[in-house]
Amino acid sequence: MAALPEPKTGDPSLGERYRHVRGLSEALVAPLSDADATVQSMDDASPAKWHLAHTTWFFETFVLRDHVAGYQRHDERFPFLFNSYYEAEGRRHARARRGMITRPTLDEVHGYRAAVDAALLDALPKLPEAARELVALGCHHEEQHQELLVTDMLHLFGENPLEPAIWPAARKVPVAMPGPIGWNERGESVVEVGHAGEGFAFDCEGPRHRALLAPHALADRTVTNGEWAAFIADGGYATPRWWLADGWAWVQREGVGAPLYWEHRDGLWTRFGLDGRRAIDPAAPVTHVSFYEADAYASWAGARLPTEFEWEAAAASHDPVGGNQLDRAGAVEPRPASEGPAFFGDVWEWTGSAFRPYPGFRPVEGAVGEYNGKFMSGQFVLRGGSCATPRGHARASYRNFFYPHQRWQFTGVRLAKDL
Amino acid sequence: MAALPEPKTGDPSLGERYRHVRGLSEALVAPLSDADATVQSMDDASPAKWHLAHTTWFFETFVLRDHVAGYQRHDERFPFLFNSYYEAEGRRHARARRGMITRPTLDEVHGYRAAVDAALLDALPKLPEAARELVALGCHHEEQHQELLVTDMLHLFGENPLEPAIWPAARKVPVAMPGPIGWNERGESVVEVGHAGEGFAFDCEGPRHRALLAPHALADRTVTNGEWAAFIADGGYATPRWWLADGWAWVQREGVGAPLYWEHRDGLWTRFGLDGRRAIDPAAPVTHVSFYEADAYASWAGARLPTEFEWEAAAASHDPVGGNQLDRAGAVEPRPASEGPAFFGDVWEWTGSAFRPYPGFRPVEGAVGEYNGKFMSGQFVLRGGSCATPRGHARASYRNFFYPHQRWQFTGVRLAKDL
Amino acid sequence: MAALPEPKTGDPSLGERYRHVRGLSEALVAPLSDADATVQSMDDASPAKWHLAHTTWFFETFVLRDHVAGYQRHDERFPFLFNSYYEAEGRRHARARRGMITRPTLDEVHGYRAAVDAALLDALPKLPEAARELVALGCHHEEQHQELLVTDMLHLFGENPLEPAIWPAARKVPVAMPGPIGWNERGESVVEVGHAGEGFAFDCEGPRHRALLAPHALADRTVTNGEWAAFIADGGYATPRWWLADGWAWVQREGVGAPLYWEHRDGLWTRFGLDGRRAIDPAAPVTHVSFYEADAYASWAGARLPTEFEWEAAAASHDPVGGNQLDRAGAVEPRPASEGPAFFGDVWEWTGSAFRPYPGFRPVEGAVGEYNGKFMSGQFVLRGGSCATPRGHARASYRNFFYPHQRWQFTGVRLAKDL
Amino acid sequence: MAALPEPKTGDPSLGERYRHVRGLSEALVAPLSDADATVQSMDDASPAKWHLAHTTWFFETFVLRDHVAGYQRHDERFPFLFNSYYEAEGRRHARARRGMITRPTLDEVHGYRAAVDAALLDALPKLPEAARELVALGCHHEEQHQELLVTDMLHLFGENPLEPAIWPAARKVPVAMPGPIGWNERGESVVEVGHAGEGFAFDCEGPRHRALLAPHALADRTVTNGEWAAFIADGGYATPRWWLADGWAWVQREGVGAPLYWEHRDGLWTRFGLDGRRAIDPAAPVTHVSFYEADAYASWAGARLPTEFEWEAAAASHDPVGGNQLDRAGAVEPRPASEGPAFFGDVWEWTGSAFRPYPGFRPVEGAVGEYNGKFMSGQFVLRGGSCATPRGHARASYRNFFYPHQRWQFTGVRLAKDL
Repeated sequence: MAALPEPKTGDPSLGERYRHVRGLSEALVAPLSDADATVQSMDDASPAKWHLAHTTWFFETFVLRDHVAGYQRHDERFPFLFNSYYEAEGRRHARARRGMITRPTLDEVHGYRAAVDAALLDALPKLPEAARELVALGCHHEEQHQELLVTDMLHLFGENPLEPAIWPAARKVPVAMPGPIGWNERGESVVEVGHAGEGFAFDCEGPRHRALLAPHALADRTVTNGEWAAFIADGGYATPRWWLADGWAWVQREGVGAPLYWEHRDGLWTRFGLDGRRAIDPAAPVTHVSFYEADAYASWAGARLPTEFEWEAAAASHDPVGGNQLDRAGAVEPRPASEGPAFFGDVWEWTGSAFRPYPGFRPVEGAVGEYNGKFMSGQFVLRGGSCATPRGHARASYRNFFYPHQRWQFTGVRLAKDL
Repeated sequence: MAALPEPKTGDPSLGERYRHVRGLSEALVAPLSDADATVQSMDDASPAKWHLAHTTWFFETFVLRDHVAGYQRHDERFPFLFNSYYEAEGRRHARARRGMITRPTLDEVHGYRAAVDAALLDALPKLPEAARELVALGCHHEEQHQELLVTDMLHLFGENPLEPAIWPAARKVPVAMPGPIGWNERGESVVEVGHAGEGFAFDCEGPRHRALLAPHALADRTVTNGEWAAFIADGGYATPRWWLADGWAWVQREGVGAPLYWEHRDGLWTRFGLDGRRAIDPAAPVTHVSFYEADAYASWAGARLPTEFEWEAAAASHDPVGGNQLDRAGAVEPRPASEGPAFFGDVWEWTGSAFRPYPGFRPVEGAVGEYNGKFMSGQFVLRGGSCATPRGHARASYRNFFYPHQRWQFTGVRLAKDL
Repeated sequence: MAALPEPKTGDPSLGERYRHVRGLSEALVAPLSDADATVQSMDDASPAKWHLAHTTWFFETFVLRDHVAGYQRHDERFPFLFNSYYEAEGRRHARARRGMITRPTLDEVHGYRAAVDAALLDALPKLPEAARELVALGCHHEEQHQELLVTDMLHLFGENPLEPAIWPAARKVPVAMPGPIGWNERGESVVEVGHAGEGFAFDCEGPRHRALLAPHALADRTVTNGEWAAFIADGGYATPRWWLADGWAWVQREGVGAPLYWEHRDGLWTRFGLDGRRAIDPAAPVTHVSFYEADAYASWAGARLPTEFEWEAAAASHDPVGGNQLDRAGAVEPRPASEGPAFFGDVWEWTGSAFRPYPGFRPVEGAVGEYNGKFMSGQFVLRGGSCATPRGHARASYRNFFYPHQRWQFTGVRLAKDL
Repeated sequence: MAALPEPKTGDPSLGERYRHVRGLSEALVAPLSDADATVQSMDDASPAKWHLAHTTWFFETFVLRDHVAGYQRHDERFPFLFNSYYEAEGRRHARARRGMITRPTLDEVHGYRAAVDAALLDALPKLPEAARELVALGCHHEEQHQELLVTDMLHLFGENPLEPAIWPAARKVPVAMPGPIGWNERGESVVEVGHAGEGFAFDCEGPRHRALLAPHALADRTVTNGEWAAFIADGGYATPRWWLADGWAWVQREGVGAPLYWEHRDGLWTRFGLDGRRAIDPAAPVTHVSFYEADAYASWAGARLPTEFEWEAAAASHDPVGGNQLDRAGAVEPRPASEGPAFFGDVWEWTGSAFRPYPGFRPVEGAVGEYNGKFMSGQFVLRGGSCATPRGHARASYRNFFYPHQRWQFTGVRLAKDL
């Protein structure tokens, strides 16, 4: 989990930041029973309890164990259980069997968190700068897991035939249907992309470098549920010509005919969400679509997906902490735009760019260095952050990545066109 | 779940019987957290919560719904969740996804049990005889699930790298190592087998009929852990000639080298049990072996498995409620024999008989009739009951059955020989 | 491949027998191209070339290598390729990869056969009795493979969308539709079953022993295609109550809705056969049904499958070399009965008996001893022989066996009933 | 199979070109028996007969059927058999079952080829320009299949335990071991990449466009077998830190420990090739490595794979018809460089670039338009051509592509470094 240098971690507010991040995780799991927090609903997802413990293990291992003399592990058996994929940190429990860990209980995991929090906050004032950077890194790491926490909880509840709601529905402000997509054109240009070296960033966001953009137009908003319903009605999922070969095979094999969580009931498209099952909002951005679906939709619409650098160049002038992002526990969901173009929040936007290293990328040495580089094959980049992304976590250079069939995140689509 | 006629259900003690059976289920799950009771550790196993609810659904459906006017389902959504395989009772949740049901919670399932118990005990005095027979049948049904409850709990805890104990270890009475196997010989004879028509029995135990036994000898005790360790030490799991072809393929594919739950640690064979991981007791009956292993062991020992009728003829004169069977919640396990030959308790004994219908067998009409007949292919008969079988549940004619690779039940081996 | 003692192999006609059997194999493959003889159409089937070579390897190994001084293997590399499953004979090519062996060519395999034939016929007069018995055993072994040769060829051609015919259709003699099934009743009786010790038999047919039959009735003919079409029309494949649980799962998983090779075309049931695709003959015995289908049909018909001993007791008085069996290469198929009841030929008849050892069964020592005993789990016994069984190969005690889902052999159904 | 405009197809030599291409295919299969040409050794590979027929179907369908009035299909059943993946051309035989097609025979497929050749050469003089372009496209298409023909034949023979040689070994010219890799450096620069519009190219090679290269160094030769053996000896396949996560999972799952076709025998690394099994040549380029292996090797070597544009910019000044490419049927293999740097021939070079569309890429309308665009996910670009690429087929802009685990093509590695 390598990070680019972040000069400001000496900031006295690091303790505040830590408390805030840790507190949000606790708030997110508040509605969960011990069982809710323990079950793993698919291989891609992890139990809530595991997220709570794994993020704690990160602080315990890379900060307390490595930088606090005399620190005693809270429980010597936990590293085996709660390491995720750090090969250098030794053997670990199989990912697909995380749901077997009924013990330690949720209460015991809360106890683990409390103990590590106490030790860390106690040690914080005396920590060397390198360790403080790891605390900051751990906060960003935990924010990533907060988003997974939300989407994994949603997936689990969606597997229950009773379809229980996790939180009550949010109050909705009526918003007019968005007008047609507007297109922002840009001629050939060399742009600077990647993290600039100020503030925190993950290793894969750098080095900052120049990239050449071809002439193109970028949509001023994302695709809506209503537009997606038109794609379905036009036979989009039954027409091979719109699909990549791998995507078409996936559609056939999995019997896909709509975004994840959509069901047609009583003549109406509904979706399952954190507030239970409800009718789709035609004005809201479509979400829970895979890269394959996003690409097929774009073909059907006579467009394509943007490259990650087209997106980044356009987003650079927008406020990364604006928009519909995660502020507190509750039934977040993508919302209709009530104002002008936004690049951050609502849904992660699939790009047409494979997740590959930037020129000059080099993994950091040591266990934290395993973070992003090893995933640089087979996945596509998503940009922008979603309604489940903790506000402040995303930025213009942020690169999220998933396999092209995955869609349990809040993933959506912005179109682009060649000029 | 068809039963042969049982004339005595008019017995005033049916309410007592019901209370006792229901209470034992509750006692067995007492050590479980909500999460422990919710997770499904493999497709063959079910969550404890599911066992608790499914047995309740059985009473609610076949007694209250069918025989109590005006009964209102406790929750209309439960039949979909808690029907097991009764096709005639409609669609149901996929068996392999039972572990997704984090809601209803364990507490809610206890509430479901309490409500059905109250309604049933209230209705009991006025129930017609047919309904009373179904109550009795439901008690036997729940006893079957109690054994599964114990073995499924064991399996779940065995999947946890922490290997938690469910109950404290029982006090052990020192017992001498058993002597060599003694052989009871019997010449050709025609015997009566199958349920005799007195007392309860499942449909597959009848009709009672004559069977011809060939001359044979039957071991006077089951194979011990110590003997099994000798089989391993002699390369038993690495020598194809002892194995059925299907068994050898299973050993190779699964990498099997010892009974389930055995591990070699620090030069010692250990086993995981309800009381955690401990050294094996060489004097105790081996358990958690598959039919394939049982058959291979018998070949290695120059013997064979008994037929189910050889076993039944020998067991008929033994007390079916004696031996090491389940009386109360706790860390049961097979124990060294401290006295003479026993046919009941400790371990289910694999026979060489495929589970097939008796002459004249006919499934009962209706949903309960789906019970046993539909499983009559591919499985082998086990006889005798185990340390996890509720005392009183088994009898000489009782036919348990599992697939030849399954071994998470308390399954063991008694040898036989042709004369 | 253990055989029971066969005192008459000193017969001077052994050479004739050998020549006849070997010649029939050659005749059967005459229509095949090199490619036809090489491809493996599924894991259960073997290439024709493999059958030709494997049966030759058997004679070369157990007769020439073991009993003829100075014999040099035709090709030292062949044992690895053409051993089937004799663990004691060393490592061998994976069964599922038999279709990769494009070399040696079909011509080279014919050359292998010719060389072994020459060596064996040359050695025959001087062979000791034990070796002559192995020659006789090898002939029976090759007859078994002749039946597989026919059914594997049929399967391969059935996989070709062009559906080529292997042989021209046989001339058909018009026969009246069979009347309703007649039932032959039999009271409880003790019968002798198993091979009697005269003539050749495979090890699994013995020892001869007594068996007790319950009162029952046995159908006087097998089920016809017309009757099977009525089962389909009545929703037989869509009604779970007729099916064993494993069978129902198989139907669902594989999408089974008719016997193998049946297709509904232009409103008509057709079947693919050795003479290509043609309309089914409603008067002919149904074939290519699995045990699961046979059992479901019997349930639907209010009957059951016979036990293997009910069948054997009834068949004992019938001529085992009569009926529609394989005499020469050509488009054999089950035919409508033009005369009285027959137990041999047309179709193998599924019994309700699991393939298990008889009392006193003991595998012969050595590599040939691996023959039948190791398959005694999970399979069901079939009796009677089919139109693809070389005439003279079957007998009343003959036990064929397959897994309950397999149906590429000529397998059919005779009903029985409890009295 | 869309092509960019190729103005020169009016060339009178199109007939010569057609005859030459078609003739090479026939020469390549000359050593094959009917069986060799029929068997499919894995899902990724196709039978030689299928390649011969599919390339013929292409000409028959898109030229003769669409542009020659009154043309009658050679066989109406062939389109179903020999269409590859053109959804717009209707249903087709399942890819994984291509090896079932023992009929038509190899001779009949040769007959199909002869008939289509005659019809096409007859029609050629009168064909409109659009049709002539399709003939030229069909020639390039057949060249692609020639390479697959060679590698699929190699794979099939490699599956045969006898490891037959397809052709005799080529005479080897002794060459000195190559010296250490030299590095060609290049500063940041904007280059033109993609097909320039002169001569033939596949649709995915265009449009030509500008790309920005970061400062880098490119190796002056590919990695050798000797260098690869050092990687193995250093534990390369057992050290997770060199591997992408997907690659490490692949290594573990498949038990990979060396390039495909390598085996360690008698203390020596050997490889299977078109001339049978022989010792590796340490001076020759390593081949039959996957992208995962190539990437791991590069990490181990402190380098990375080049981007496709770094490669193209460097290769642009090299002769695309030079080097070790396919001229005639025979045992081709990568050879030690006897002269200066070469970019074409020997081995396809894995790049670090995902196979994605160029700016402005647009699939051609119609069935041929399905050609390349639909494969633009999950695959990586390879550049340069191999010893099995027909000379004249490759060029600097040519983009080959395979999944990162595939390695039955002649695939190798050239290193690059960031500056």
